[in-house]
Amino acid sequence: MILITGAGSGLGAALAGLYSEDNIPLLLSGRSKVKLEKVASTFHNEVKVKAADLSNASDVDALLGSLPEVPATVIHCAGSGYFGELEEQNVDQIEQLIHNNLTATIFLLKELVKRYKYEKVNVVIVMSTAAQAAKAGESTYCAVKWAVKGLVESVRLELKGKPMKLIAVYPGGMATDFWQSSGKSLDTSSFMSASEAASMLKHALTSAEHGYVSDITINRN
Amino acid sequence: MILITGAGSGLGAALAGLYSEDNIPLLLSGRSKVKLEKVASTFHNEVKVKAADLSNASDVDALLGSLPEVPATVIHCAGSGYFGELEEQNVDQIEQLIHNNLTATIFLLKELVKRYKYEKVNVVIVMSTAAQAAKAGESTYCAVKWAVKGLVESVRLELKGKPMKLIAVYPGGMATDFWQSSGKSLDTSSFMSASEAASMLKHALTSAEHGYVSDITINRN
Amino acid sequence: MILITGAGSGLGAALAGLYSEDNIPLLLSGRSKVKLEKVASTFHNEVKVKAADLSNASDVDALLGSLPEVPATVIHCAGSGYFGELEEQNVDQIEQLIHNNLTATIFLLKELVKRYKYEKVNVVIVMSTAAQAAKAGESTYCAVKWAVKGLVESVRLELKGKPMKLIAVYPGGMATDFWQSSGKSLDTSSFMSASEAASMLKHALTSAEHGYVSDITINRN
Amino acid sequence: MILITGAGSGLGAALAGLYSEDNIPLLLSGRSKVKLEKVASTFHNEVKVKAADLSNASDVDALLGSLPEVPATVIHCAGSGYFGELEEQNVDQIEQLIHNNLTATIFLLKELVKRYKYEKVNVVIVMSTAAQAAKAGESTYCAVKWAVKGLVESVRLELKGKPMKLIAVYPGGMATDFWQSSGKSLDTSSFMSASEAASMLKHALTSAEHGYVSDITINRN
Repeated sequence: MILITGAGSGLGAALAGLYSEDNIPLLLSGRSKVKLEKVASTFHNEVKVKAADLSNASDVDALLGSLPEVPATVIHCAGSGYFGELEEQNVDQIEQLIHNNLTATIFLLKELVKRYKYEKVNVVIVMSTAAQAAKAGESTYCAVKWAVKGLVESVRLELKGKPMKLIAVYPGGMATDFWQSSGKSLDTSSFMSASEAASMLKHALTSAEHGYVSDITINRN
Repeated sequence: MILITGAGSGLGAALAGLYSEDNIPLLLSGRSKVKLEKVASTFHNEVKVKAADLSNASDVDALLGSLPEVPATVIHCAGSGYFGELEEQNVDQIEQLIHNNLTATIFLLKELVKRYKYEKVNVVIVMSTAAQAAKAGESTYCAVKWAVKGLVESVRLELKGKPMKLIAVYPGGMATDFWQSSGKSLDTSSFMSASEAASMLKHALTSAEHGYVSDITINRN
Repeated sequence: MILITGAGSGLGAALAGLYSEDNIPLLLSGRSKVKLEKVASTFHNEVKVKAADLSNASDVDALLGSLPEVPATVIHCAGSGYFGELEEQNVDQIEQLIHNNLTATIFLLKELVKRYKYEKVNVVIVMSTAAQAAKAGESTYCAVKWAVKGLVESVRLELKGKPMKLIAVYPGGMATDFWQSSGKSLDTSSFMSASEAASMLKHALTSAEHGYVSDITINRN
Repeated sequence: MILITGAGSGLGAALAGLYSEDNIPLLLSGRSKVKLEKVASTFHNEVKVKAADLSNASDVDALLGSLPEVPATVIHCAGSGYFGELEEQNVDQIEQLIHNNLTATIFLLKELVKRYKYEKVNVVIVMSTAAQAAKAGESTYCAVKWAVKGLVESVRLELKGKPMKLIAVYPGGMATDFWQSSGKSLDTSSFMSASEAASMLKHALTSAEHGYVSDITINRN
């Protein structure tokens, strides 16, 4: 089965839809149970939903505890954006950004490694091209995304030789609600839709007996 | 149609086989016409072969001049390896390594950009995970692969907004003839086969209306 | 004058001592007023101390508000370490690590940029070589240090053309109390002392009419 | 004594002048003996000159063979620039660029490691900020500079625990003859002069008993 975080909207919801079409059992998580149920209501296969705030360690524990079996794949899409010149950013929103992106990912990955590091589990961590380059107007967002990249690269070293694999995904320029709620005004009409990105990502998440696609960057044209 | 360089063996030959099964017209290139013809002889569809030394600018010109149409995709797999502690490396083999990997890629990419930058052409540049990290015993190999990465990232900036796209591929730990001829002795029994890598790469090379997978790293387990 | 954060011990205290010998007016900050006063008590020149928890925005505001003049240089040494395999790390200590390193640096830099971006102020951000490479056993530490690097590189883009400059410093392998309190046991006898690192850093922090040393990595032998 | 390559002009010549003032014995190298003698003629201390084309392995051998003692420091400034959109670059000049920057550095470093890896020799490799970021209009220049960075980082791993140290220097925006001869027209009036960069670099090249400044980036304001 596949656990998808951030499944209430955007890329996470779009991926859930695609895997649902393949009849793969899913556990969808996100902060809003209402959104998750709305997403799941359109599917015809076995889909569980469980709300969780991943920056809360006990929520992470409860979420993984609710899995009926070892998941073959975990796709961590949860995250949020916040933008603007550094001196104009708001202190509370900076802390929220850190919680939603960095703290949440550390707590989830910590618990996944603890439970499944000796199992064949693929953990897909969806970041952003902001994890790969500095950007004016995105300083704190780049900060938390660079952090997650540093975390992933380091934990890979800790997992060396173990069956659990970390797959790093860097999408850039997706048109999701994310931007509307981020405080950055952008014309996103030429951006990829979440469903385009989901479709490409699903194709690219491939493996063979002796290897796997470990890092994927998706860009808009 | 698809142009594949380095198609005489390894990943290039394996990719050619997969695309041949899909009945996609192919132009296969490599330094040895004999090897190319051997590869092509097993296919049932339209396959042209043309030998070329890509570190020779007039060979590059002739190769692209022989294309009957604008290729939809160019997959540049050509390259060679050479390893060992720096002080034990041989001067002539270092120069050969630079020619085969760096000079060849610059000349090919220069000519591709010149001819096709206003066309919808996907240029897939196959490097190595050695382009992403320093490695003891691989100093000159890392050097030429880092060079190609710097080239690709820079030319992307020059192509911004144009329909031609550069796709960067970083395979690590493939078991091909490459290693046997490279002067580095390694047990490659747990490495990916070229056909495994080709199959994963073909899946991952995907695009949508507004976006595409721009960077792919493939690692062995 | 020079503002030094994290001046209660380690590199910050050692730098304070060196600049004090040059009779440069100093404002020393750190979380413990007792430690700061102990450091300052050995100096003979004008030294102010002000305790501050930089992960608290109002403390940052009060600290900068207490500066009698625009500082020529700010050296941000404050930070803490926490290590171990990810699955063995403690949730509270992870949050503390994020606060001490990432939140604190964002809040300090945000306020510095707001107040001084049109002034000739050199802001020296001391990170670690952990900001430049992934390390097993240091996943969350690398995460927060990569974050600060991403922040610094992005804010540099926002400051382009302005007189305020960000100088990035990456020390590796220093023997300070930091390690004793970090939960990682290491033989640090061959490590640099804080006073060695401070002396090298002071030399390397140099500028000319049209340029400046913008990035410095200091390594042990 | 100090060996300086590329000492016929620019940063190399400026550094030679500064070390000459300190009465440090020097061996200056460059492609043009006339230029080297002109530079040396203004100095009052012991200065040897020896012309060498470092992309020629026997020249490298002869250069190092002419050293009367193990050099304390080698500062490798030799290099050349070549710019422009990739499709407009000239094949011969691309090959020259590769020889002058990549082949030369590999051959010099290979011979230095071979002769001195068990000696306390600091090898300073002067690259460019083009080694750290991709730039439109500088694709092949970035390529050769990224190559040298990959080489240096890899050879560092081979030298781990040995007394020879590699110091990486990345200057950006220097106003030297380099630009006039590079085919790129730029207003360099606000750029650093070579003598400013030399002065900063000399300050920053510092070490202590247990450590040293390993990486230095110098930028214009």
